[in-house]
Amino acid sequence: MVTFADIETAAARIAPHVKRTPVLTSDWFDQRAGIRTFFKAENLQTGGAFKLRGGVNFVLSIPDADIGRGVVAFSSGNHAQAVAIAAGIRGVKATLVMPDDAPKSKMAATRARSGEIIVFDRLKEDREAIGRRVAAETGATLVPPFDHELIIAGQGTAAKELLEETGQVDALVVCLGGGGLLSGCATAAKAMQPGIKVFGVEPETANDWALSIKAGQIVEIPPPNTIADGLRAPKPGKVTFPIVQKLVDDVITVSEQEIVETVMFLLDKMKIVVEPSGAVAAAAILFGKLPPGINTAAAIISGGNVDWELLRSFEG
Amino acid sequence: MVTFADIETAAARIAPHVKRTPVLTSDWFDQRAGIRTFFKAENLQTGGAFKLRGGVNFVLSIPDADIGRGVVAFSSGNHAQAVAIAAGIRGVKATLVMPDDAPKSKMAATRARSGEIIVFDRLKEDREAIGRRVAAETGATLVPPFDHELIIAGQGTAAKELLEETGQVDALVVCLGGGGLLSGCATAAKAMQPGIKVFGVEPETANDWALSIKAGQIVEIPPPNTIADGLRAPKPGKVTFPIVQKLVDDVITVSEQEIVETVMFLLDKMKIVVEPSGAVAAAAILFGKLPPGINTAAAIISGGNVDWELLRSFEG
Repeated sequence: MVTFADIETAAARIAPHVKRTPVLTSDWFDQRAGIRTFFKAENLQTGGAFKLRGGVNFVLSIPDADIGRGVVAFSSGNHAQAVAIAAGIRGVKATLVMPDDAPKSKMAATRARSGEIIVFDRLKEDREAIGRRVAAETGATLVPPFDHELIIAGQGTAAKELLEETGQVDALVVCLGGGGLLSGCATAAKAMQPGIKVFGVEPETANDWALSIKAGQIVEIPPPNTIADGLRAPKPGKVTFPIVQKLVDDVITVSEQEIVETVMFLLDKMKIVVEPSGAVAAAAILFGKLPPGINTAAAIISGGNVDWELLRSFEG
Repeated sequence: MVTFADIETAAARIAPHVKRTPVLTSDWFDQRAGIRTFFKAENLQTGGAFKLRGGVNFVLSIPDADIGRGVVAFSSGNHAQAVAIAAGIRGVKATLVMPDDAPKSKMAATRARSGEIIVFDRLKEDREAIGRRVAAETGATLVPPFDHELIIAGQGTAAKELLEETGQVDALVVCLGGGGLLSGCATAAKAMQPGIKVFGVEPETANDWALSIKAGQIVEIPPPNTIADGLRAPKPGKVTFPIVQKLVDDVITVSEQEIVETVMFLLDKMKIVVEPSGAVAAAAILFGKLPPGINTAAAIISGGNVDWELLRSFEG
């Protein structure tokens, strides 16, 4: 299990390379939601997402003997860009295996960070297998997107920073894809504020976590179709699942419509660009999905790499 | 003249009601501009603009004997919303005189803040005269948009906070409409860092300041047509002009195209929503308008109340 000490170690390791992003509040949001909410704006992180935290923590931990052969990662976008930036810090090559339907903006940004991209068919090919093949052929180190203790510890630094600024709150609300961010953040939150309630949020159409928690074991769903492209992992991770199972109070789902409306609300009223995946935690709060008795909440805005074309197509 | 002590007094007075907005950086921006830039994100201020600083400083200074009769202001939008919020703090009524072509989003937000709006024709009627008439008829206190020492001192708190965080920089870059923000910020900057260069930036099509500084006296231009609706004041203020004349190193102009491209850059790469007026300082840096020798800059992002329809029409 990842410990709070691991998160503190990660925080010290990544500090020179990762922004301490601002904590934002909005009286518009609070009024409509009925909950005083503090947002950790990881959309303003370098690379536009929290992924840099885990990526840098992992890549800085690769032994000198191995790092020269570079790194490889599979990702729909934000992890790819993070690994490309992390590789740059160590001066090595990054190869990114990305699905062919990844947002174009994320692919372009990854290329701009000097990452080399291999495209695959998300519905037919296994990205993990391709990633492992590249790793085997080149000797590059595979940087897992979420299911690794160093990744989880890195992501946990987001909640650590957030709760340091907010002080005591009733709840922490975090999006759920592979579970790396939530596992790390729940670990930090329960260590810092043992009485805090922690909620994971995922799209209704990508409810592998809700099904898995209910079943008491990992349940895989068919490749999910959701506008939240960062939350399309079809099943919980082997490392993240038991952490979420132990520390998280509940898993909440939000509809596609709720996600899109929240993206527009954050854009229009809070003046920040948030990608659909990054808005699901805020959506759960805005649309009254938390249980009664929650008056203050801390939420992670996980990323801002919006594909405007995709967003417009969902707006209808 | 406004002094740094006035700005410190304002800072203490407004602190309970005004956010200390974050200072943002972007490696994308720095790379393209060739200047390490620190942005004061006043688009994330309550009301979506820096205007709350001066508005609250002024309204909190109105004597108890007068405040009961309410306040009145004339504004294209952001000052109106600020005055409505400030009036709410004191529990009194705000009447806002707004041009009929003010962005609809700004009118709607002002109404949502319980402000009562009187619309006038910007090209035919004199908003100052209407404001003064309302003040005379109702006994309401007129809250000037920029040309008053309490307003200027309030706006100066933005630069004070910014330079407290950045430490020494080569330049401070601020937008220029009526000159309230620049006057206050220049006063703070030159007091805190006597060697700093201070630049004002205005749209090419609203270059009343550039003309006035060149002429050595206040020059009025016809009602300007620029997408930067917050910078359409046709002439410098009587109080702001001598301050800018004395403290500001140069006035720079940017084109409509440069403004729109900067808005899109800030949206796409920095994940923040910035209105055209709020982007002109960034535009001057991004498009190489600063003189050589500037390696680090602090810039104010003055507001985020974008009218999306208007922006799309300029994008073409």
